Amino acid sequence: MVNKYKEMLGAKSVIRELSEYAAARGKEIGYGNVFDYSLGNPSTSAPEGFKKAALRILTECDPMQVHGYSPSLGIPSVKEKVAASLKERFGLNYTAEHIFMTSGAAGAIAHAVRLVAEAGDEVLTFAPFFPEYHPYIDLSGACLRVVPADTERFQIHFERFREMLTKKVTAVLINTPNNPSGTVYTKETLQELARIMKEKEEEYGHEIYLISDEPYREIVFAGVEQEYVSKFYENTISCYSFSKSMSIPGERIGYIAVNPACKDAVTMVQMCGQISRGIGHNCPTSLIQLAVAEAVGETSDLSVYETNRNLIYEELVKLGFTCVKPGGTFYIFPKALEEDAKVFCQKAKKYDLILVPGDSFGCPGYFRMAYCIDTEKVKRSLPALRKFVEEEYGIRRENGKWQD
Amino acid sequence: MVNKYKEMLGAKSVIRELSEYAAARGKEIGYGNVFDYSLGNPSTSAPEGFKKAALRILTECDPMQVHGYSPSLGIPSVKEKVAASLKERFGLNYTAEHIFMTSGAAGAIAHAVRLVAEAGDEVLTFAPFFPEYHPYIDLSGACLRVVPADTERFQIHFERFREMLTKKVTAVLINTPNNPSGTVYTKETLQELARIMKEKEEEYGHEIYLISDEPYREIVFAGVEQEYVSKFYENTISCYSFSKSMSIPGERIGYIAVNPACKDAVTMVQMCGQISRGIGHNCPTSLIQLAVAEAVGETSDLSVYETNRNLIYEELVKLGFTCVKPGGTFYIFPKALEEDAKVFCQKAKKYDLILVPGDSFGCPGYFRMAYCIDTEKVKRSLPALRKFVEEEYGIRRENGKWQD
Repeated sequence: MVNKYKEMLGAKSVIRELSEYAAARGKEIGYGNVFDYSLGNPSTSAPEGFKKAALRILTECDPMQVHGYSPSLGIPSVKEKVAASLKERFGLNYTAEHIFMTSGAAGAIAHAVRLVAEAGDEVLTFAPFFPEYHPYIDLSGACLRVVPADTERFQIHFERFREMLTKKVTAVLINTPNNPSGTVYTKETLQELARIMKEKEEEYGHEIYLISDEPYREIVFAGVEQEYVSKFYENTISCYSFSKSMSIPGERIGYIAVNPACKDAVTMVQMCGQISRGIGHNCPTSLIQLAVAEAVGETSDLSVYETNRNLIYEELVKLGFTCVKPGGTFYIFPKALEEDAKVFCQKAKKYDLILVPGDSFGCPGYFRMAYCIDTEKVKRSLPALRKFVEEEYGIRRENGKWQD
Repeated sequence: MVNKYKEMLGAKSVIRELSEYAAARGKEIGYGNVFDYSLGNPSTSAPEGFKKAALRILTECDPMQVHGYSPSLGIPSVKEKVAASLKERFGLNYTAEHIFMTSGAAGAIAHAVRLVAEAGDEVLTFAPFFPEYHPYIDLSGACLRVVPADTERFQIHFERFREMLTKKVTAVLINTPNNPSGTVYTKETLQELARIMKEKEEEYGHEIYLISDEPYREIVFAGVEQEYVSKFYENTISCYSFSKSMSIPGERIGYIAVNPACKDAVTMVQMCGQISRGIGHNCPTSLIQLAVAEAVGETSDLSVYETNRNLIYEELVKLGFTCVKPGGTFYIFPKALEEDAKVFCQKAKKYDLILVPGDSFGCPGYFRMAYCIDTEKVKRSLPALRKFVEEEYGIRRENGKWQD
C-alpha cells in the first residue's frame, strides 16, 4: 500500500486541479470574475441554531464534560436526538443503539464498507458517481465496480446492474440526491433496486447490504420528493453528513443509522466502535456533536440552490444542451457539446467558466457544474456560457431561437 | 476482518470495564467515594486561550470560511503555527510542509503506521505500553510485537530489542513520557535506541522509522527533562495530541510532524492525505484546528498532576511497594503485592480502589493508577490504600515503620 499511496500523489484529483486553477486565475482577474463551478463547498451560512448552540455550550457548560472523551460510539444524548429525529421524520423505529456518530459521510462510509465487505469482496455503485468512492472502497481492501449510467434519466440501468450483481458483491452503494447528476431516485427505482437485491440475497444465501450515502437528503427542490431509502430495504446502512444541510463541511460531522430491522443491527453499530480503533477515527469532535444535536432538524437557507438550478437549467436548455433536470443537490450534469468532455471543459476555461468533465464520475461526454455559488455570480456567468457555446460551437441565436 | 471486529466485541477493554464498574459503584455509594484510578481523562480545565479563541472564531469570523472544507493536509495557517512553535522550542527546521493535522494521536498513529508499514511488516514497541497500540497497528495489516519491559527502570531492554529488531521490522513505536509507567526516556536511552536503529538500517538496507507517540510531552515534573525525540533520529514521525496538554481529548485534535531530515519528508506528509481518503479521516474539525492554533504553546494548569504524583508515590513507598518514580504523565505503575496483579486489583475493589492490572500493558504483576483526579480525592484515597494493604497483605505500621 505504501507505493499505492505514493502513486496516488501523481494522479491528482481533476476537481481539485480545476479548483486550484480557478483560484490562480482569480488572483489574475479577481475571483469574482471566475465562474468557478468546480467545488461542492456550500455557499450559504450555517443555521443560527448551530452557532448559538456552540456558543452556549462553550460559555455555559462544564468544560471537562464538553471537552472530555466521548464514548466511542458517540455521545449518548446526541445519538438519542438523532434517532428521535429520524424516527419522527421517516417512521423507522430508530433508537440511540442504531446510531454511530462519524466524522462526516467519509467517516461513515469508511466504517460501513468495513462492516460489510471483506478484502476481495465487490461493492457496486452506479455511474455517475462521486469519484472519492474509489479510494473510500478500494483502499479498504474491497473493490468498487461501477454499473454504467442510465444516461436517459440518471436513474438505474437495471439490466447492467443484474449482470454485475454477482455472488462476489456484498454491498451496493447509492447516492440520492446524486452527486454529480442532481437526480433524485424515484420510488419505483428504489423499489426495483430492493426487489433485485432481495432476490439475489436469497439466490446467493448471503446478505447484500445497501449503503445509502445521503449528504444531500435535505436539498430537494419543489415538486420532487426524496423517499427515505432505508424504508425500502431492511439491510440498509444510511450514511449521513451535516456538511451540506448545515453548511459545515469542515466540521466533519455525520452519522451511520443502521435500519432497526437490519440483520444484527445493534451489533453492527457496536462493531463500528471496533473498526474505529483500527482506523484512528475514535469519534467526531464532542463540541460539534453537541452543537448539531441541539440544532438537529435545522438547515441552512437552502433555497439559493433551487434559484441557481432554475437559472442554469433554463439557460442550458435554451442553448440546446441535453440535460436531465436536477431534483436536488447543487449539481447539474449536462451532456457536453462534443464527444470529449475534457476538451469541452478545456475550451470553457477561455471564458473563465470552470466546468468539470464527467470522466472521473464514470460518465464520459458529460460535465458537472457545482452551482453552490452566489446567485449574482450565476447570473453574470450566463452571458459567458452563451458566448462560449456561440463561439466554440457555432450555435447562434436568431429570432429568439438558437440555430446551428 | 468482519469476524475479527465481531470477536473484538467479546474481548472488552479491561480499563473500560473497570471504569464502568467505578461508575456503577458510584451510583451506589456516591462517585466521590469511589477512588477511581482507571481512566486517563484529564482532570484540569482547558486553557482560557483555547476557549477564548473558539468563541472569537465563532462570533467574529466568516462562518463560510470557518466551517468550510479545510485542505486535506490541514489548514495552512494552522500548520504554519504548529511548525513555528516546534521549530522555536526544539530547534528542528520544521515548516508547514512537515505537518499533517490529525484527529488526535489515534489519527496520527493510524496514518504513521500506514506510511511506513506494509501488511505483514512488524512494528516493535516496548512494554509497558498503551494497549490500544494493538488495534492501531494490527488492524492496519501490520503486526505489533512487544519488547519485554526493563522492569528496573522502565527504560528500554536493549538486549531483547536487538534480538527482536529483525529485517521484518519497518517501524519502532515509542511513548515517552510513558503511559502507563510515567517514565521519561533519558537522553542515554534515546541515543542508544537511535544508534541501534541506524546500525540495523544499514545492515538491512531499508529504513526503520521511529514513530514517537508524544501526547504527554508537556506533562513533565520538576527535575526531569523530556528530550525531543526527533532530535536523536532523522527518520522520526512525531505523533502529537493536544488532548492531555490542553485537556480536550473529546475534541480530537493533534498532528504528525515529520522530521525535516527524514527520507522524503515532504512526500510523506502528502501521502498522509492519500491515506486519509482510504480511512475516512479527511482532516480534523476546522473550528478546533483554528482554536488550538491560536492557543498553541498554552497548556492547562498541569501542576495538579505533580502534586498527585508526590502524594501517591510517597505513600506507596511508605507502604513498601516497589515503584519507579514517574517523571511525567498522570500515571504510576507499581509492582503488585502478589504475583497476579489481576487478583490484587480485584481485592482492591473491596476498598473502592479502582486499579488497573498491568497485564494488558504487557507487564503482568504490575498495576496502573491514573491520578488525573482531584487532589482532595487522592488524599482521601490514601487511608483506603493503607487499609487495603494492611488487611489483605498483613503489613502493619509499628513505631512509624511498616512491618510484615
